[in-house]
Amino acid sequence: MESLFATERLRSLLPRIQEFVETELYPLESTENLTQNFSKIEPTLLEKRKRVKEAGLWGLHLPVADGGLDLTLCEFGQISEVLARSPFGHFVFNTQAPDIGNTELLHKYAPAHLKEKYLKPLMAGEIRSCFSMTEPEFAGSNPTRMGTLAVKEGDDYIIDGHKWFTSSADGAAFIIVMAVTNPEASKYKQASQILVPMDAPGVTLVRNIPIMGHAGDSWASHAEMRYENVRVPQTNLIGPEGAGFLLAQERLGPGRIHHCMRFIGIAERSFDLMCRYAATRELEAGTLLGDKQFIQGFIADSRAEIDAARLLVLRTARHIDEQGAAAVRDEISMIKFFTANMMLRVVDRAIQIHGALGVTSDILLSYWYTHERAARIYDGADEVHKAALARNILKSYGLDTRRK
Amino acid sequence: MESLFATERLRSLLPRIQEFVETELYPLESTENLTQNFSKIEPTLLEKRKRVKEAGLWGLHLPVADGGLDLTLCEFGQISEVLARSPFGHFVFNTQAPDIGNTELLHKYAPAHLKEKYLKPLMAGEIRSCFSMTEPEFAGSNPTRMGTLAVKEGDDYIIDGHKWFTSSADGAAFIIVMAVTNPEASKYKQASQILVPMDAPGVTLVRNIPIMGHAGDSWASHAEMRYENVRVPQTNLIGPEGAGFLLAQERLGPGRIHHCMRFIGIAERSFDLMCRYAATRELEAGTLLGDKQFIQGFIADSRAEIDAARLLVLRTARHIDEQGAAAVRDEISMIKFFTANMMLRVVDRAIQIHGALGVTSDILLSYWYTHERAARIYDGADEVHKAALARNILKSYGLDTRRK
Amino acid sequence: MESLFATERLRSLLPRIQEFVETELYPLESTENLTQNFSKIEPTLLEKRKRVKEAGLWGLHLPVADGGLDLTLCEFGQISEVLARSPFGHFVFNTQAPDIGNTELLHKYAPAHLKEKYLKPLMAGEIRSCFSMTEPEFAGSNPTRMGTLAVKEGDDYIIDGHKWFTSSADGAAFIIVMAVTNPEASKYKQASQILVPMDAPGVTLVRNIPIMGHAGDSWASHAEMRYENVRVPQTNLIGPEGAGFLLAQERLGPGRIHHCMRFIGIAERSFDLMCRYAATRELEAGTLLGDKQFIQGFIADSRAEIDAARLLVLRTARHIDEQGAAAVRDEISMIKFFTANMMLRVVDRAIQIHGALGVTSDILLSYWYTHERAARIYDGADEVHKAALARNILKSYGLDTRRK
Amino acid sequence: MESLFATERLRSLLPRIQEFVETELYPLESTENLTQNFSKIEPTLLEKRKRVKEAGLWGLHLPVADGGLDLTLCEFGQISEVLARSPFGHFVFNTQAPDIGNTELLHKYAPAHLKEKYLKPLMAGEIRSCFSMTEPEFAGSNPTRMGTLAVKEGDDYIIDGHKWFTSSADGAAFIIVMAVTNPEASKYKQASQILVPMDAPGVTLVRNIPIMGHAGDSWASHAEMRYENVRVPQTNLIGPEGAGFLLAQERLGPGRIHHCMRFIGIAERSFDLMCRYAATRELEAGTLLGDKQFIQGFIADSRAEIDAARLLVLRTARHIDEQGAAAVRDEISMIKFFTANMMLRVVDRAIQIHGALGVTSDILLSYWYTHERAARIYDGADEVHKAALARNILKSYGLDTRRK
Repeated sequence: MESLFATERLRSLLPRIQEFVETELYPLESTENLTQNFSKIEPTLLEKRKRVKEAGLWGLHLPVADGGLDLTLCEFGQISEVLARSPFGHFVFNTQAPDIGNTELLHKYAPAHLKEKYLKPLMAGEIRSCFSMTEPEFAGSNPTRMGTLAVKEGDDYIIDGHKWFTSSADGAAFIIVMAVTNPEASKYKQASQILVPMDAPGVTLVRNIPIMGHAGDSWASHAEMRYENVRVPQTNLIGPEGAGFLLAQERLGPGRIHHCMRFIGIAERSFDLMCRYAATRELEAGTLLGDKQFIQGFIADSRAEIDAARLLVLRTARHIDEQGAAAVRDEISMIKFFTANMMLRVVDRAIQIHGALGVTSDILLSYWYTHERAARIYDGADEVHKAALARNILKSYGLDTRRK
Repeated sequence: MESLFATERLRSLLPRIQEFVETELYPLESTENLTQNFSKIEPTLLEKRKRVKEAGLWGLHLPVADGGLDLTLCEFGQISEVLARSPFGHFVFNTQAPDIGNTELLHKYAPAHLKEKYLKPLMAGEIRSCFSMTEPEFAGSNPTRMGTLAVKEGDDYIIDGHKWFTSSADGAAFIIVMAVTNPEASKYKQASQILVPMDAPGVTLVRNIPIMGHAGDSWASHAEMRYENVRVPQTNLIGPEGAGFLLAQERLGPGRIHHCMRFIGIAERSFDLMCRYAATRELEAGTLLGDKQFIQGFIADSRAEIDAARLLVLRTARHIDEQGAAAVRDEISMIKFFTANMMLRVVDRAIQIHGALGVTSDILLSYWYTHERAARIYDGADEVHKAALARNILKSYGLDTRRK
Repeated sequence: MESLFATERLRSLLPRIQEFVETELYPLESTENLTQNFSKIEPTLLEKRKRVKEAGLWGLHLPVADGGLDLTLCEFGQISEVLARSPFGHFVFNTQAPDIGNTELLHKYAPAHLKEKYLKPLMAGEIRSCFSMTEPEFAGSNPTRMGTLAVKEGDDYIIDGHKWFTSSADGAAFIIVMAVTNPEASKYKQASQILVPMDAPGVTLVRNIPIMGHAGDSWASHAEMRYENVRVPQTNLIGPEGAGFLLAQERLGPGRIHHCMRFIGIAERSFDLMCRYAATRELEAGTLLGDKQFIQGFIADSRAEIDAARLLVLRTARHIDEQGAAAVRDEISMIKFFTANMMLRVVDRAIQIHGALGVTSDILLSYWYTHERAARIYDGADEVHKAALARNILKSYGLDTRRK
Repeated sequence: MESLFATERLRSLLPRIQEFVETELYPLESTENLTQNFSKIEPTLLEKRKRVKEAGLWGLHLPVADGGLDLTLCEFGQISEVLARSPFGHFVFNTQAPDIGNTELLHKYAPAHLKEKYLKPLMAGEIRSCFSMTEPEFAGSNPTRMGTLAVKEGDDYIIDGHKWFTSSADGAAFIIVMAVTNPEASKYKQASQILVPMDAPGVTLVRNIPIMGHAGDSWASHAEMRYENVRVPQTNLIGPEGAGFLLAQERLGPGRIHHCMRFIGIAERSFDLMCRYAATRELEAGTLLGDKQFIQGFIADSRAEIDAARLLVLRTARHIDEQGAAAVRDEISMIKFFTANMMLRVVDRAIQIHGALGVTSDILLSYWYTHERAARIYDGADEVHKAALARNILKSYGLDTRRK
């Protein structure tokens, strides 16, 4: 724990969570579990969720009223890191994306009838959900361009569109769909977020998109979706009409803390694996991997880079707690690209240290190498964040790079 | 084609091969073919082999006596690059590792009866083979440490041992096993290479090791093997007894040219994909990816790095042709780490340019991202090659880093 | 100011110091002042020191008893950053190395007569001092190897030796010399620190060593020194005999915070220069440097890296305040290489953005490019710190890399 | 020598030149000569020029008619590398920039009277010259923007303008000035090159610009120039009016080969210095620098990168010889940024290996660290070349990034 960001409750909570992760979840990291589809291990994980509840650790991300702890973002971030040391941690604690984001969203913006019907079971871990925004026809780096339309007809919206990277749609009970409701508005006010039940007629999960060779399934999948003449009542609108981007933006602030702390957990675990291996793998009689400076260099660089990234992210989390996400947008851009790149470097070094073993699924590293490459792409590619950060900085120097 | 290394026959041959690869093999790069096991596409590829033969392009790596062209290594390297632009190229032309290496080996060192029984059908593409050296219990960076033993009993060897990363064992007709025959000899003269039929009693393919989440099968797999009391006649010895490392070393010189030129083919194709996408993907009305300097930087750096690596590798190939591999060991070390790292950077940039599409199996890049990460590990990890290269250089400055 | 590390007094102090630096010192950055020897600008700077005193800002690094503020290391570090934005800041505030380190040292360990004679005028800025440790004959990365001897004769030490990189010896009133007094002791207990007046017979300043083409002079110089039969009373010993390394070590903890915060000040100022230029330099009609993504990338990366490094250093400073330097040696190693490399990258990017102007002495950047390259070498080269950090980490994993 | 590019005459010539450089010029690398102004060592170098003539090595860059050898660019490039291993090599062989470029220019484009008066003594090494293009008011990355005007009056041009980075103006006999003669023409056809005697009234050498702290003098200087009402006859025009950029472009092709081969010479010499030091510097009893993997990594990476860059540059040189510079503009862009960055990395590693010694002027490295940082800026900054290269590549993919 970083003492700068420690709190009383973290001091008691974190070790308990860490112990749970180490004793209950690390043993699940078998070759089999790291290679087969998620649905195979899902029953086991659902069993583990019971233990989480028994241990009184359920609902870490929730307000007190919902059985949670009202943790600050900075506190939750530190928990998130510990959960991320296992690929199953977030799911077992029901704090997995995209459900955690949808939980926050529904909490703040959903009408009561949706809360009752969807939020409650979501918080209980009885259903899953997804978020449907990205479209294959338009560059993800420019989310305001969107082809999906929601047209009013009577009391309903009729939704038509084509999406992909709708993560965890497979098996989800509902979808938050981002669709253009106000095509005549200015470009940031055209879209709305609408809750669509997965079983609504016209909703088609075209396929789980194969990523790095795996289509995956259930929670661990990324769907291509078609919405054809899908009819939902207008009361399924989340927040005000036209506020789709505003809400997405709001979601992204804390969302990036979640992601970044997850990256740090992954990096920290990879670091642990590299050190363990370096300290025990013999190269020749009496010489261990860790005796070699090349390996020492990997270790030293990784240690410094992880620590630096963690401080950067937790500072931002605290600032969001204190000032709101809008006030620290630059920091949020900064942590995204800095941390994602750091994590991928650390994972890569850990693989290299493990040699042939490193690329196998006998050890965790290749799981992250494949599943987390997208970290530099989703929620804003490196290039998008760097340009945005520089743009804001240059504005303070009097240059509006968007003046044209 | 790099004019410095062009030859008359290459000028006629390369365009034909390139056309074959583009028209016959590129269309096979469907999402399905990039994700399913190799055995599913194998029948199609075997059909393609017939077309290769019809086109008179079979046996590119073979001596004239065996229906080949006696190409120099430098010539064949350039063909290898073109074949590597498709993940199926080498297999379709029967020049895939490890068969190409075994072909060379048997040619030079196998007794006539083994040539008749194994080399002939291997050259004809009727059987496949594998090479069994690496052991999980010992660091791959130090190949002289080995637990597999071949003990003489009567006219036979009795082989016992445990290997892994025996690539393409699944479906192979025979194995070249590296085993200690002379435990009392100096460490580089203890091992021998022995041909073992796959169906010999005591040979067990324990599993195809899952790599990056995939066990794969058939040619595209990497097996863990057990040899328990496996009996083969001593006439199955390849080359002299105790010459195992010498032969392995000899194999590695040209083998690294093959690998490196394959890396360059992969990089070149990834470069082509990144440019195509950059030139056509719209970010917003009127602005394409390629208009952005970040993307331009990826393109420019990649172009320079690929060209530099190709020149380095072809220079080395020519030197091997002229002086033999032993004379240019430093160059061989150099190209291995330089080219593998270059290729992985280019593939990574190409993924980044493609955004979310880049990590999917709808496009070729993630195939290489996962299958080729091991390029920095097998046949000598980066660190091993760098240390070896520096050691030789420092020797010429009067420092023997192994003096202790 | 980083709010995590802000304190009440910093909130009032820092803006005043910053204003002083900006209004009094930035105007001194003429081409002339950046190229001529330090002695030329020294009188001006000594005038500025009077203003510092008038403004009540003198003695920031001192205890209350000596007219200072008893600032914590973490507080002083933040001041140090602001001072470092000008190449003259530290000198004008009398907090320049090596005097600040010698001040701390004499405070803690000097006998009263030395404090009276040397510490008092040092704190008053009336004299300067230097520290003589590194020897050309021995690798700086292994400070325990040392040829300088101090042999007892009567009540005196007779010192003989050859040193270099005795920074600021030119014009200094005294030298703290590290010399072997106990050659029979274990290697970390052989040396002692002894105060030697600059005018002691046998002390020769051989030359100010030309660094990057400049020998420099006065405070801004690095001397080669000869000590030949130099006689000083044994009461000139600082701390206990044989404690030379212990004291040096103690000095290095806070010393590295000083250096690292200085690096951050340099990086921050370079960042400011790059942004100013990017926001105003026209490339063609209507297009400014800052409109280019390459430049934006430099800006974004620099912003993230500076922030990360500052958090890392200030965390360490706080830990030293709380736990002492010995408890956080790993962190101290970490910040040294991480911050020095970051600073040099940022300076380099700032130069690149300025084009031809960047390499001239019409702007500050080349001053730092040349004067600060040594940041990756002195006080422990990158490689030394990385190896030390990894060694300690691996120890916690059970591997003692020094076991042999 | 790279055997791919060896020729008969190189085989005899190169060793002689290398021996001359090593025996005549290496001994000049004293601390004094590396720090004092060029004019101090100039007499010694002019003496060395006599030895060059005696050795029959004068005029390596000249046509046969002028006493040269008509070397190809590819041959001369290899000589250039060897000369560059000493900071004095090019000057001593009279092949230094900008004179070599002016020699080529006058040869091809000057009227007879200028050849007689200026080219002859230039080739004889009796006078020096300079080239005045860059202007402080306009970004060097866009050379078509220019404020210097040459207006016709009677038979003369009247030139007014402000330039800087007019290298080697100090002591030069004449200047080739780039000035706008045709302001109404399209932007690439506005400027002309005009020969201006240094002593023409109105020509002022404002100052030698301090670079990295040094103004330098004589050949080793970079002047700021004012042209005020400077009158020269129109017969001083070089080439056709309006052809200024065309000629500059033509100059840049071979010019970049010269620069890049010089970079390679610098890198190769730095490599030699790092290996020598690594092989002999003791860290502790029995352990040398070169025993450390960090150092080995520096050596191995440098070896590979230098070789790769040399092949890239010599390939381009040969292509220019065969096809002309216009045909391989992409390659010329590529080698410029690739080689300049490589050289600076190698120099930096060599400094790091030397520790404190590395930043001093007791050894050659810091000379290059400071004098060659501009390599990534002049003759096209990295960013300009990368964008240009990518632009051309993307054009072949159907995207005209300049379409707007």
